[in-house]
Amino acid sequence: MIKHALNVTREADFAAWYQAVISEADLAEESGVRGCMVIRPWGYGIWERIQRLLDDRIKATGHENCYFPLFIPLSYFEKEAEHVDGFAKEMAVVTHHRLIQKDGRLVPDPEAKLEEPLVVRPTSETVIGAAFSRWIQSWRDLPVLINQWANVVRWEMRTRMFLRTSEFLWQEGHTAHASEAEAREETLKMLEVYRSFAEDCLAMPVVAGEKPENERFPGAVSTYSIEAMMQDGKALQAGTSHFLGTTFSTAQNIKFQNAEGELELAQTTSWGVSTRMIGGVIMVHGDDDGLRVPPRIAPWQIVIVPMLRDQPEDQAIVDYCKTLQQELAALSAFGEPVRALLDLRPAKAATKRWGWVKKGAPIVIEVGGRDVAGGNVSVIRRDRLYREDGKLDSAVVPRGQLVDEATQMLESIQQGLHTQARERMDANIRRDITDFATLEKAFDGAKPGWVEVSWSKPGGAELDKVVERLKALKLTFRNVPNDVVADGGTCIFTGAPAVERIVVARAY
Amino acid sequence: MIKHALNVTREADFAAWYQAVISEADLAEESGVRGCMVIRPWGYGIWERIQRLLDDRIKATGHENCYFPLFIPLSYFEKEAEHVDGFAKEMAVVTHHRLIQKDGRLVPDPEAKLEEPLVVRPTSETVIGAAFSRWIQSWRDLPVLINQWANVVRWEMRTRMFLRTSEFLWQEGHTAHASEAEAREETLKMLEVYRSFAEDCLAMPVVAGEKPENERFPGAVSTYSIEAMMQDGKALQAGTSHFLGTTFSTAQNIKFQNAEGELELAQTTSWGVSTRMIGGVIMVHGDDDGLRVPPRIAPWQIVIVPMLRDQPEDQAIVDYCKTLQQELAALSAFGEPVRALLDLRPAKAATKRWGWVKKGAPIVIEVGGRDVAGGNVSVIRRDRLYREDGKLDSAVVPRGQLVDEATQMLESIQQGLHTQARERMDANIRRDITDFATLEKAFDGAKPGWVEVSWSKPGGAELDKVVERLKALKLTFRNVPNDVVADGGTCIFTGAPAVERIVVARAY
Repeated sequence: MIKHALNVTREADFAAWYQAVISEADLAEESGVRGCMVIRPWGYGIWERIQRLLDDRIKATGHENCYFPLFIPLSYFEKEAEHVDGFAKEMAVVTHHRLIQKDGRLVPDPEAKLEEPLVVRPTSETVIGAAFSRWIQSWRDLPVLINQWANVVRWEMRTRMFLRTSEFLWQEGHTAHASEAEAREETLKMLEVYRSFAEDCLAMPVVAGEKPENERFPGAVSTYSIEAMMQDGKALQAGTSHFLGTTFSTAQNIKFQNAEGELELAQTTSWGVSTRMIGGVIMVHGDDDGLRVPPRIAPWQIVIVPMLRDQPEDQAIVDYCKTLQQELAALSAFGEPVRALLDLRPAKAATKRWGWVKKGAPIVIEVGGRDVAGGNVSVIRRDRLYREDGKLDSAVVPRGQLVDEATQMLESIQQGLHTQARERMDANIRRDITDFATLEKAFDGAKPGWVEVSWSKPGGAELDKVVERLKALKLTFRNVPNDVVADGGTCIFTGAPAVERIVVARAY
Repeated sequence: MIKHALNVTREADFAAWYQAVISEADLAEESGVRGCMVIRPWGYGIWERIQRLLDDRIKATGHENCYFPLFIPLSYFEKEAEHVDGFAKEMAVVTHHRLIQKDGRLVPDPEAKLEEPLVVRPTSETVIGAAFSRWIQSWRDLPVLINQWANVVRWEMRTRMFLRTSEFLWQEGHTAHASEAEAREETLKMLEVYRSFAEDCLAMPVVAGEKPENERFPGAVSTYSIEAMMQDGKALQAGTSHFLGTTFSTAQNIKFQNAEGELELAQTTSWGVSTRMIGGVIMVHGDDDGLRVPPRIAPWQIVIVPMLRDQPEDQAIVDYCKTLQQELAALSAFGEPVRALLDLRPAKAATKRWGWVKKGAPIVIEVGGRDVAGGNVSVIRRDRLYREDGKLDSAVVPRGQLVDEATQMLESIQQGLHTQARERMDANIRRDITDFATLEKAFDGAKPGWVEVSWSKPGGAELDKVVERLKALKLTFRNVPNDVVADGGTCIFTGAPAVERIVVARAY
C-alpha cells in the first residue's frame, strides 16, 4: 500500500483533505483577520500565472485595464434597488476617518465621522457606471471595453479559503454598447474566453451555459456561468458573465446620442473570475499527495533538487545542477520560456522533494553524485508519482534526453491532467433521468455527480417552488449548457413540455 | 510662435499645467469619491508597465509575491506605539458589516457593529509582521523575502492626483533577516533597485540617500529615499527603503532560534514605491504639448494613424498600415517586443494625432494616400515635435527605413529624455552655499532648484529647531546622498563641524 504525503485522503474526508492541501502546499493560511486569508508565495504565484494568461486574452479581445475606487458612497447603491437587495446586505462599511487614543486603546474618533458612509466595493457596477456616464456622450464613444484587477469585500459569515472569503481578488470586466445585440455578443464572447481559458490553461473542463432566473446576478437580464466538477462531484461556479441590459445605465444615467441624433440608454455587461479558481484547481487536480498544478499555471514547472551530503563532491553536483537549470530555462513550452528552479535552500533533499510533490510542481529532478558521474538525472513526474508496485517512480535518464524531452513532457502533463478531469466529469453527468424521484435517488450516494435533465423553464413563483424542492435536497440549478439541444421531452419538475436541458448539482 | 496643444504652459502655471496633462492625456480623473481617483487606460497602462519592469527586478533579487489582508484589526496597531503615532491619525475605519434601509435610505445596521473596528491598511508592517511571527522559527527559515502589490488608504485632507490620494496603488516589500548587517544590506540593495529602475526605465534621474531623523518612517531605524527633481525645481520622493531593526519584530514577536540554539529577534526591512511615480514621470518629462512617456513604460510605443478620407483608396491605406503594424510588432526594443498600435477609431486623423501627442506616445506615424503611393510613412517623434521654424516636425521616410530604424529610435528617445532630465537636475543643484542667509536667498526665485550643503547631523531638539527654520521657508531636508563625501566644512545650520552633505528643497 502506498503511504501518501498527506495524512488525510480525499476518500476519507474531502473537506479536511482540501484544507490539508492548502496548508501542506503552502498556498494560503488564516490571517487572524476575520474571513481574510494570507495568500502565500506558491498560491500567489499560481494567481499571477492566471492573471498573466487571462489578462492577455482579455486584452486580445480589445479590453483595456483601468482602476476604480475601493470605496463606494452609499448613495450610489441607493440608485439601483435590485442591486442593493442582492449586495447591500453584508458589506464592510467605513464610517470614520480617524482614530484617537482613549483609555490606552485606539477608538474611532467621534469627531471624524463621515457625513456619508462608504462601502468597501463588493463589485463595481455602480462606481464604474458613474464613470461611464461621464465618458459616454456619442455613439462614437462606444463600445467602452474595460477591465479591472482588484480586491473586493463581501462580508461572508462562513468562509472557506479560496472558495468564500470576505476579501478576495478578482478581475471584473465592464462594457457599454450601443445595441442589445452587441452587448449580448460581448457577454457570450467573454463567457467563451473563460471557458477556453479554464480548459486550456487550468486543464479544468467546464460546462458553459445560462443561469436560470433565480441564479441571476442582482440587476442582470441574463447571467451565464462556467461550472466545473470537483472530485467530490460537487459543482464550482468558476466564472460568470452578465448581460445587464439598461439596468445600470438607467440607474447611472449612461446615455449616448445615436447616429440619428437621438438620446439612447447604453447596454452594459459585466463579467468576472476570482481567486476562487484556485480552489477549483485544487479540487479538480489535487490527489492524496497534495496539489498537482497544471504546467501552464505552475510558478515553477521544473524544480531541481541537488542531493548534497556536506561532502567535497557537493560543489560538482551544484555546478551540474546550475548548468541543467540554464539549459532548461532556455527552452520554451506553451510559447513561453520554461520556468526552472534550482532549489538550494538549506534543507534535506528528501524534505525538499516531498515539499515540491505536495506543492504540485509538474516535474521534480533530483541530482546526486551518481547522477553527475553518469551524466544522468532522476526525474519524478507529478502526474505519475508511483509505479505499479507502489514505489516512487523516479526514472534515471541521461541529462541530454531530459532536456530534449522536457517541453514535450510539460505539454503531456498539461494534456493528461485535462483528459483525466474531462473523463471524470463526463462519466459523472447523468443524462438519463426523466422523473423527479429518480433524480432524488441519484443524489443519495456519497459522490453523486451531476444530473442534466429536461425542463420547461418555469419562472416567477413556479420556479421558486421548484428551487425550494431542490433546496430541501441541498441541490441547485447550475446552468443550461450552451451546446446542448433540448430533446423535446417533459419537464421533470412541472410536467410541462421541456424547452431546455439544465444541470442540477450540489455546489460550493 | 508655436501654438501648443495644451492651453496652459508650465511657465504660466505649473500646478494647472499638471492637471491639464492628466486630463488631456487621459491619465486619470476625479472619481466622485472623496480623495480617490479613477486611473484611466493610458494612466493604468503606464502603471502596468512600471509593475512589470519593477516586479521582474524585485523577483530577480530573490523576492516572492504574496497577498495580505486589506483590513487590520486595531489591536495590531496598538502594539507599536511609534508606528501608531505616525499612521493611526488619518485612516479609513470599518465599524459595521451590514446596511439596512431606513426611511428610504441605506444606513449602517446598528445590529451589525464590529466588536473590534478594522482599519483599511495604510501600510502592512503590522499584519505582515504577524505572519512573519508564524512563519519564522529557526535561522533556517531566514531570510524571508516577500513583496505585495496592493491598494492602501491614507485619509489625506488635501489630495492631488497621483501625488497624494486617499487610496493609491503600490508595492510594499517586507523582509526578515538573522542579522542587522544582512537587513541593512537588503535595505540598501532595494534602494539601489529603485534608483536604477527610476533611471533606466522611467528615464528619471534621482538622488539616492538617507533621510534625516525627522523624516524617518514611523518605527524605522534608518530610512532611505530616492528623490527626483520636477521641472518646477521641487523634489518628489519617489521611493523609500527602511531598515526597521527590531521595532516590528519586538511588537509582533518575530523570533528565531539561531545556530547556537538561542532565541533572537529578527531584523526587518520594508520598502515601497507607488502610483506617485506616475506624477513624477509627468512633471519630469511633460512639456507644453502634454506628456512624453519614456518608451520603456509607454503602453504603446508606436502609434499608426491612417489618414482616411471616406474614399475608395482608404482600404489600401488601412492594408498598408496593417502590414506596417505587423512589421513593427515583430521588432524588439529594450529586450521586449515593440508595442505598436494601429488606431482605427472613427475620428479625424488630426484629432487622433494630437490625442497621441498629448498622451505622449513616443512615435506617431501618419499614413496617407501619398505615403502609400510612394512607399513612405510620415514620422513624428514626440521628443522632437517642432522644427526650428515652429512647424510640426513630420518627416517623410521610406517605410523600410522606418522599420529598420524604429528600435534604435525608441532607444534614442529613452536615452534623450534621460539625458535632458539629468542635465536639468545637475544644473539646478547648488553646492556652493556655506551660510544660511545665502541658502535663504537661493530659494527666493520662482524655480529655485535644490541646494546641497554641509551639516553636522544634529539630532533631537537641535534638529527640530533646524527643521522649524526650514519650514518657515517652506523647505525640507530631502536626503544625504549616498555617493557624496562630506568635505569637512562647517554646518550651515549649527556652525559645528560638518559630517555629511544634505539636500534641501521644496517638495511635493
